[in-house]
Amino acid sequence: MEYQKILEDIYEEIQPFAGMGNQADYIPALAKVNPDQYGIALKTVNGESYSHMQADTRFSIQSISKVFALAMGLSLKGEDLWKIVGKEPSGTAFNSLVQLEVEKGKPRNPFINAGAIVIADMLISELDDPDAAFLNFIRELSGDESIDYNMEVAESEREKGYLNAAIVNMLKYHGTIKNDIEDVLMFYFRMCSVEMSCADLAQAFLAFTNCAPFDYAGFRLTSSQIKRLNAVMQTCGFYDEAGEFSYLVGLPGKSGVGGGIVAVYPMRYSVAVWSPRLNPKGNSIMGMKSLELLTSYTQESIF
Amino acid sequence: MEYQKILEDIYEEIQPFAGMGNQADYIPALAKVNPDQYGIALKTVNGESYSHMQADTRFSIQSISKVFALAMGLSLKGEDLWKIVGKEPSGTAFNSLVQLEVEKGKPRNPFINAGAIVIADMLISELDDPDAAFLNFIRELSGDESIDYNMEVAESEREKGYLNAAIVNMLKYHGTIKNDIEDVLMFYFRMCSVEMSCADLAQAFLAFTNCAPFDYAGFRLTSSQIKRLNAVMQTCGFYDEAGEFSYLVGLPGKSGVGGGIVAVYPMRYSVAVWSPRLNPKGNSIMGMKSLELLTSYTQESIF
Amino acid sequence: MEYQKILEDIYEEIQPFAGMGNQADYIPALAKVNPDQYGIALKTVNGESYSHMQADTRFSIQSISKVFALAMGLSLKGEDLWKIVGKEPSGTAFNSLVQLEVEKGKPRNPFINAGAIVIADMLISELDDPDAAFLNFIRELSGDESIDYNMEVAESEREKGYLNAAIVNMLKYHGTIKNDIEDVLMFYFRMCSVEMSCADLAQAFLAFTNCAPFDYAGFRLTSSQIKRLNAVMQTCGFYDEAGEFSYLVGLPGKSGVGGGIVAVYPMRYSVAVWSPRLNPKGNSIMGMKSLELLTSYTQESIF
Amino acid sequence: MEYQKILEDIYEEIQPFAGMGNQADYIPALAKVNPDQYGIALKTVNGESYSHMQADTRFSIQSISKVFALAMGLSLKGEDLWKIVGKEPSGTAFNSLVQLEVEKGKPRNPFINAGAIVIADMLISELDDPDAAFLNFIRELSGDESIDYNMEVAESEREKGYLNAAIVNMLKYHGTIKNDIEDVLMFYFRMCSVEMSCADLAQAFLAFTNCAPFDYAGFRLTSSQIKRLNAVMQTCGFYDEAGEFSYLVGLPGKSGVGGGIVAVYPMRYSVAVWSPRLNPKGNSIMGMKSLELLTSYTQESIF
Repeated sequence: MEYQKILEDIYEEIQPFAGMGNQADYIPALAKVNPDQYGIALKTVNGESYSHMQADTRFSIQSISKVFALAMGLSLKGEDLWKIVGKEPSGTAFNSLVQLEVEKGKPRNPFINAGAIVIADMLISELDDPDAAFLNFIRELSGDESIDYNMEVAESEREKGYLNAAIVNMLKYHGTIKNDIEDVLMFYFRMCSVEMSCADLAQAFLAFTNCAPFDYAGFRLTSSQIKRLNAVMQTCGFYDEAGEFSYLVGLPGKSGVGGGIVAVYPMRYSVAVWSPRLNPKGNSIMGMKSLELLTSYTQESIF
Repeated sequence: MEYQKILEDIYEEIQPFAGMGNQADYIPALAKVNPDQYGIALKTVNGESYSHMQADTRFSIQSISKVFALAMGLSLKGEDLWKIVGKEPSGTAFNSLVQLEVEKGKPRNPFINAGAIVIADMLISELDDPDAAFLNFIRELSGDESIDYNMEVAESEREKGYLNAAIVNMLKYHGTIKNDIEDVLMFYFRMCSVEMSCADLAQAFLAFTNCAPFDYAGFRLTSSQIKRLNAVMQTCGFYDEAGEFSYLVGLPGKSGVGGGIVAVYPMRYSVAVWSPRLNPKGNSIMGMKSLELLTSYTQESIF
Repeated sequence: MEYQKILEDIYEEIQPFAGMGNQADYIPALAKVNPDQYGIALKTVNGESYSHMQADTRFSIQSISKVFALAMGLSLKGEDLWKIVGKEPSGTAFNSLVQLEVEKGKPRNPFINAGAIVIADMLISELDDPDAAFLNFIRELSGDESIDYNMEVAESEREKGYLNAAIVNMLKYHGTIKNDIEDVLMFYFRMCSVEMSCADLAQAFLAFTNCAPFDYAGFRLTSSQIKRLNAVMQTCGFYDEAGEFSYLVGLPGKSGVGGGIVAVYPMRYSVAVWSPRLNPKGNSIMGMKSLELLTSYTQESIF
Repeated sequence: MEYQKILEDIYEEIQPFAGMGNQADYIPALAKVNPDQYGIALKTVNGESYSHMQADTRFSIQSISKVFALAMGLSLKGEDLWKIVGKEPSGTAFNSLVQLEVEKGKPRNPFINAGAIVIADMLISELDDPDAAFLNFIRELSGDESIDYNMEVAESEREKGYLNAAIVNMLKYHGTIKNDIEDVLMFYFRMCSVEMSCADLAQAFLAFTNCAPFDYAGFRLTSSQIKRLNAVMQTCGFYDEAGEFSYLVGLPGKSGVGGGIVAVYPMRYSVAVWSPRLNPKGNSIMGMKSLELLTSYTQESIF
């Protein structure tokens, strides 16, 4: 497969979408990013690496961090994890409180904010130094020790994070959260603030292609657990656009409001794309289109 | 009208309900109240006073304070008040977040928690010393300088106040709240923590019978504004039991989770009753029954 | 009170609202009504009658019929009526299915469509000839034997009545409806199709001012039942504008999509107003404004 | 792969679940089925066939018919199909009206009742003889001319079909349905009434493994369209248990209230299982468990 040419062709073909949509601007650190950047990186299970444009520029991974947190949670708790968080698609926006109220404090899945916050709380309870553990985990996954939190982003998110503060208070009210509200919120925001490049993310997600035993920084997952984590990404990774992504791209994936999207084709490849301009659902416009074209050109996708 | 005998007869007749229901126990200060207390007080526009049992025992007025806050708000803002809060019955429980989410941060009415919190925020913006102003207002209304906040209750509420913290964060997210979240929450909880007796409350609500010009501690309301305030009590004063209270008692009224209920018969009388045991909707069981019997015996009610 | 002059002044003052809004046009029979008509009639408990403009022109009473059905239902069933229908304000639009689904087939109150349909079903079960009984009842109430159903309107409503058909099927699914779906729907639509003038309605609603024993065509209500029926009108008579009407007008009332509104001041007067142009909530714009001015000018209102 | 042995082992292993749950009993024709039946059939793209127990007993396919209707719809309309129906998971039960109301008459996906009804309406508009066309399509897919509607079941469903009648009226109200309500409902119920065996269904769904060009009875789908149809099954095939099935089984699939479940492993095999006893979500208990074990034993699944 001539992946390099395909990545380059995709970039040409999505140019009509350049300039459409706006980047997230609810915090200064995201608002000041140049919105007209683009990068893509693909890594195969055979060790090949392909990339185009700004594949090495780091950006705020935001909700993509929820996959790493889920992997740690599954490793620590196994099937018991699903006692505190569901695995059904939410059918509503990522930050909805309505559904939370109806379901008495058990978030629908690990990829809506409420679900990730519940997992953050559990990691705090289980780990001696959750900040260090999370960082070690993604550094080992991506093989790059320089990956780090962006504390300015994390603090800025906290300052404006009224909706997530509402969610965490609601969860605390329902008894779902065990630790101090501020501790949970700040750990959640730190995880979201991590900065990685497309190349970093593609490398990290290669571990989720299930092509080799998963054992990073002490967190182990069985082949079956990785399959199941991918199943959750497939049905829940894109909030109320999960069906659309599944339909157009046909791969399990996860997006972040920083403009990044990752996707995994089990036993074949991982891919990461980044472009800050978002559609109204909060997903990168050029990123979505790139992955749709990728699986269309390569004919390599699950669906 | 032989009110004194009626109050005594009512007390006899409601004895079968004694011991039914439980008091609010979400904070220690409320949980430790002896639940088997009862008091009732009625004051007429002619200056007559009637009472029975523990009419002088003070208790936590809780949501009854929302009427005082609304009166201050109406006095300060007039019809503009309804730009920040609605006046429609909520059709849901007092602490629902669902409706708030659907309606983009404008609470349905001043008597659900979200609505009272929005008014608390406005009072903070408008008044130099809102704590003192609120206290002066209710002291003048009830003619008793010893009425005060219970700081232990207020702080205890804050400590356990996750749901109200969720609401205030949600309102802040929607831009409805101007002041610091903690300041708003603490002022709201202080207002709820005020302790008054049935006699105090009956005296204070006599001002809402519209039998004399309303001018207390600098807060003035026109006769028309008092009518309208009563209209809002009639339709919204009992959360999702507003229709039931309107149907059974036929007067505008307001209840609090401390077990108190006040009601007003314009141009005739005000009445306050208290008993800590609550029905599942959060309203005093013996209090509701007492007022139903009162308007049934006297045949003096609007509806 | 110079009611006649007040009615005339009101008409002058509401002229700026002439032409605002549109009439209901979901069926041809309503769409073809001249929207620029207006009538008002007021009757006092002392036997005085006042009216202005087209007070004798008949129009489709539509949802105002729900008050008559409720009166018949209360007379037949007493308090047992509330086993099949609630009495809480709905907080949502008159034709909402959402709330019905959540509450398992028990409509929130008798004035939303679902509630009136449940009462229609009960009347069919209880009465030998419900069509004749309903007509007799309102003919006696208004003292006019010429009042009748408009069968063209009723059939036209059925033809386009998909939403009400959805509601009645939903109720049947929940077991709330005992009779044949088509029979219930057609009886409901016939009741809505009745044509009355403002003068007819004012006369009919004089019976609800509680100034004399209620006994019409065999249907009797106690004074207490009439009070309670008024209480339900006060809290639920205007769908999701119930609080607004209660606030601005301060009387129990009921509106219909044909542009009619009735209101009752217990022990004083009844009033009916009609103008076909509606606000977005489905209530007559000039009608609402007229009643707001009436209670403002006369200072005669509950709230 | 020793599929035959695996099917037999599965049957042994699920015995502890025998007798759990109840069959659907809302119509007599389903209520009278012996609930303690079980069959399973698996067909590979290489032409191998495996089965166990009552794999040739026919049962009511019910909602599995929605996949056939979607295939016909996609073939007729292509991407335009998504103008009338969405492709997002619903997050609620299969028969929810709430979501329909919120989203103004466009059903969330083709596998909730509302979505399938919209497709039924479209098929009536597009096809000369939709009844014959549907039957021809599934007869060709399964290679068995004896497959047929069960008219008794269809009529019985119509008789008790209040909820679906509510849905179709709601859709008509929103203008989503073009044809006569009764015609649409009856065609929908006829499709649901088709009776097939596990062997029939496994054969029919082999066409969705994408191992050969799809062209049956004049309905053609491209390889890409089949992928996308599978993507919709993966995210939406099991109502509010879609995430659970995706997680446990890891294959796109569809269930019916008759107790049947089909699943597809693209390019490998199709499988159908049947057992009438259902879990509270309306999915076959032994069927779900069988497929979970199948993908666990074979290690052949997407996720």
